[in-house]
Amino acid sequence: MKPPESHRDLLERPLFAHLATVGSDGAPRSNPMWFLYDPETNRVRLTHTKTRHNHRYLKAEPRISMSITDPDDQYRYLQLRGEVENEEDDPEGKFYQLLQKRYRGYTTDVQDKDVRVVYTIRPTGWKSRPVT
Amino acid sequence: MKPPESHRDLLERPLFAHLATVGSDGAPRSNPMWFLYDPETNRVRLTHTKTRHNHRYLKAEPRISMSITDPDDQYRYLQLRGEVENEEDDPEGKFYQLLQKRYRGYTTDVQDKDVRVVYTIRPTGWKSRPVT
Repeated sequence: MKPPESHRDLLERPLFAHLATVGSDGAPRSNPMWFLYDPETNRVRLTHTKTRHNHRYLKAEPRISMSITDPDDQYRYLQLRGEVENEEDDPEGKFYQLLQKRYRGYTTDVQDKDVRVVYTIRPTGWKSRPVT
Repeated sequence: MKPPESHRDLLERPLFAHLATVGSDGAPRSNPMWFLYDPETNRVRLTHTKTRHNHRYLKAEPRISMSITDPDDQYRYLQLRGEVENEEDDPEGKFYQLLQKRYRGYTTDVQDKDVRVVYTIRPTGWKSRPVT
C-alpha cells in the first residue's frame, strides 16, 4: 500500500494534513495536523497529546483518514486511509521537535512533553486526484 | 450556532473545506470540497453526485465535520461540526455553477447534472484556532 508516485511530493513537503477521526458519539471530526511520512517503512507519524479528545477517540476507533491538498493547485490532492498501529510517549518531545524543524525550521522547548505522544499510522489505502 | 466573527473570512473566501464523513464500514473519510456558506440562514451547502460513495454514507450517517485552514497562515483554522439537514437534486446544475463561479470565476456546462445533488448542512458546533 504505497502512495502513488505522482503525489509523493505532497507527503514530502511540509503541508498540513486534515485528519478525520470518529468521536465517541460516532460522529466524524476533522483537524489540520502536522505529519511525517517515512518512505522506508511506509508509515505516517503524527504528534499529539494525551489531553485532547482525539486521543480518547483513537483508542476506541483507530481507523483514520487524511487528506492533503497542494496549496499551489488545490484540485490536486492525496487521500490516505489507515489505522493507528502504534502509540508511544514522547517524554523528551523529540518527535515533536522533529516536526517543529520540518514545519517551522527551528525547535523550541516542548512545554507539554509530559503528555506528548506519537501515533504511527499504517496506510490501508491511497486515493489521488487527478489520478496521475 | 454562529461561526466566530474572527474566522468568518475563511467561510467567505473560496477555500477548500476538508469534509470528514463516516463510511459504511464505520471508518472515517476525508475529502477536499467546494462549499458555500449562507450567513442569513447559517447553513453550509455542498455540491455532490449520487454516484459517489459519500452519498451512500451520508444517508446512513448524516453527521459531518469540516476543517478549513487559511492558506496564508495554516495555523489559523476553523472547524465545523454539523449534519445534513436536507438533500435535493440539482437537475440543471445551477448550484454547481454557482460554486464554479465562486471557485473558478466562470461556469461551464454541467455534464453530470442528472446526478448532481445539493447538501444543506446545519452547524452544530464551531471551533477555531487561534481562538481569536
